[in-house]
Amino acid sequence: MTLTVLFAAPELWPQYETHLPKALAEAGVTANVVVAAAPEMVDFIVYAPSAPLQDFTPYRNCRAVLSLWAGVERIVGNETLTQPLCRMVDPGLTEGMVEWVVGHTLRHHLGMDRHIINPGHVWDPICPPLARERRVTVLGLGALGTACAQALAALNFRVTGWSRTEKSVPGLHCLWGEAGLTTALEGAEIVVTLLPKTPATENILNAESLTLPARGAVILNPGRGALIDDDALLAALDTGQIGHATLDVFRTEPLPKDHPFWTDPRVTVTPHIAADTRAVSAARVIAENIRRNVAGEELLHLVNRRLGY
Amino acid sequence: MTLTVLFAAPELWPQYETHLPKALAEAGVTANVVVAAAPEMVDFIVYAPSAPLQDFTPYRNCRAVLSLWAGVERIVGNETLTQPLCRMVDPGLTEGMVEWVVGHTLRHHLGMDRHIINPGHVWDPICPPLARERRVTVLGLGALGTACAQALAALNFRVTGWSRTEKSVPGLHCLWGEAGLTTALEGAEIVVTLLPKTPATENILNAESLTLPARGAVILNPGRGALIDDDALLAALDTGQIGHATLDVFRTEPLPKDHPFWTDPRVTVTPHIAADTRAVSAARVIAENIRRNVAGEELLHLVNRRLGY
Repeated sequence: MTLTVLFAAPELWPQYETHLPKALAEAGVTANVVVAAAPEMVDFIVYAPSAPLQDFTPYRNCRAVLSLWAGVERIVGNETLTQPLCRMVDPGLTEGMVEWVVGHTLRHHLGMDRHIINPGHVWDPICPPLARERRVTVLGLGALGTACAQALAALNFRVTGWSRTEKSVPGLHCLWGEAGLTTALEGAEIVVTLLPKTPATENILNAESLTLPARGAVILNPGRGALIDDDALLAALDTGQIGHATLDVFRTEPLPKDHPFWTDPRVTVTPHIAADTRAVSAARVIAENIRRNVAGEELLHLVNRRLGY
Repeated sequence: MTLTVLFAAPELWPQYETHLPKALAEAGVTANVVVAAAPEMVDFIVYAPSAPLQDFTPYRNCRAVLSLWAGVERIVGNETLTQPLCRMVDPGLTEGMVEWVVGHTLRHHLGMDRHIINPGHVWDPICPPLARERRVTVLGLGALGTACAQALAALNFRVTGWSRTEKSVPGLHCLWGEAGLTTALEGAEIVVTLLPKTPATENILNAESLTLPARGAVILNPGRGALIDDDALLAALDTGQIGHATLDVFRTEPLPKDHPFWTDPRVTVTPHIAADTRAVSAARVIAENIRRNVAGEELLHLVNRRLGY
C-alpha cells in the first residue's frame, strides 16, 4: 500500500523535497510525499508550528503528526490535535552546532578575516598563537555546550566551561554559579554563549560582564539572542573592549534591515543556521518513525501531552 | 655564569624578542640574548639561513648553532660551520598546520565567506550539509597530512587520504599510487595538498587532475607552491570546475604583487603561516637545547653532516 505523507510546512519544502522521499525509500517505506491532499487520504503529517494547518479535525485517518521542530510548545495545546505527536530529535543538530562553533572559533583564532578581505594585497606573515595559548570560555554546559567545549579542547584550546549549577566535564576547566561566571569570563579571548533563554540568563553578557574578557575578545553567540544586551555589545565594540562578534541568533529574526549589527564591520551575522534542524538527518528521523508505525513498533520521541514535551 | 646567546636572524627578532628570554628563564638558563656581540663572546648562535651571518670562523667559543628552520640544506654545506648544528623540530608546527587546515576546511564547508562579506545584508537561512556528508581528500600522509586528516575525521568529515606509496591510517579511507590518486580526487569537495615537493609531486594538481573533483570543489594548499600548476588552477576557477582556492604557499614568496591570485575573488592568499615555526614553542626548543648543553647532556635534533639532515 502506498502511504500519503502530507508535508505541512510549506516554507521548509525546498529543503525536504529531495531528502524526505529519499529517506523514506531508504527506510523501505512506499509513500507519496505531497504538499496538499484531501484530509481523509492523509496517513502522516510532517509539521512545523509556522504552518497554516491549525485544525487537525478533518485528518481522521492520520496515524501521527511528526514535528520538524524540537520544541512543541506552540502545538501541544492545540485541542484539535488528537493524533500521536512526535517531536524532532535530530542528531544533526549537535553536529551542526559543533561545526559552527569550532569553525568560527578557528576563524577568529587564526585571524582569517584579514586574509579573506585583503584589498591591499598585504603579505604579512605573522603567525597566530597556537590553540593551546588561546583561552576560550563556553557559557552553558548542556548537550550542545558540552559537545562544543569538548571539540574545542580536542583541538588544544584552553577551554573553560561555565554552567549555572555545578557540573564537571572531563577535559574542561569547569566553573559555576555567579562567582564562577566572573572567573570564567576574566581574560577569555573567545566567549561562546550556549545557554537556554531563562530570566537568569537574559542579558548575561551586559555592560558590566563585557568588561571582563581580554581586551579585543571575540563573542560567538549561537545560543539565544536574548543572552546579549545588544546596546552594551555595540558600545563594547566601539571602545575596542570587544574586538568582534559573530552572532547567529537575534531578538528579532530575520534581523531587521536597519539593525546596526548589519553595518558594523566588527559584527558577522549568520542567519540562524548554527542550530537548525538539518533536512538530511531530520528526514531520516521522520522516515524511521513512519517505518516504525507501519511495522507496529513504538514511535520515537512521542510527546507526553500532560508534561508538554 | 651568564651565557651570551647571539640571535642571528634579524627578521625574526620581533617574534622572539619576548619569547626566547622567557623560555630561557623558564629552563633555568641565565643568559643574555643579543642581536650583536663580539664573536669570541658568543656561547650559542640562534640561526636562520636568511641571516647575513655566513662566516662562522670568528665564533671560536660558540658551543652550538641552533637553527630556527627544520630544513638545514642551505647551511649544512657551509665549511666555516664547524660547531655542532641542530635543526628545529617544533611541536607547534604540526599543531599550527592542523589548526589552519581544519579552520579553512570548516570555513569552506560552512560557506562562511558569504556571511563575512555580505554587503547586501542578505538573510538567507540555508544550512550547510553536515561534515559527515562532505567529502574531503588529503593528498599526502606524512606527519602533517596524517594529523590533519585525523583531525578532520574526528569532526565527522568523510576523509580520504592518499599517499604515493601504500599506507594505512586508522579512521581514514586510504588510497595510494597513480590509480589511487584518480579515485581519491574523483568527487572530492575539498582537496588538501600536503605533499613534499619532489619531481613526482610537482604539478600534481594540473589541467587533467583538476577535472576530477566535484564541480565547485575547494583546493587548500598549505604544502608546497609547486604542487599546483598555477595556470591550470586559474583556468579551472574560470570555468567554475574549482570554486575556490585557499593557498598558503607559492612558487615565489612573498607572492608577487602582480600575480593574478591576489586579484581573483575565488582565491584566498594566506602568507605562508600554516606551517611556520611558532616562536612560542620554538623558543622552548632552543632553550631546552642550551640547557642540555650547559648541563653536559646530549643536544636534541643534532644534524648529521654526512647525511645532510
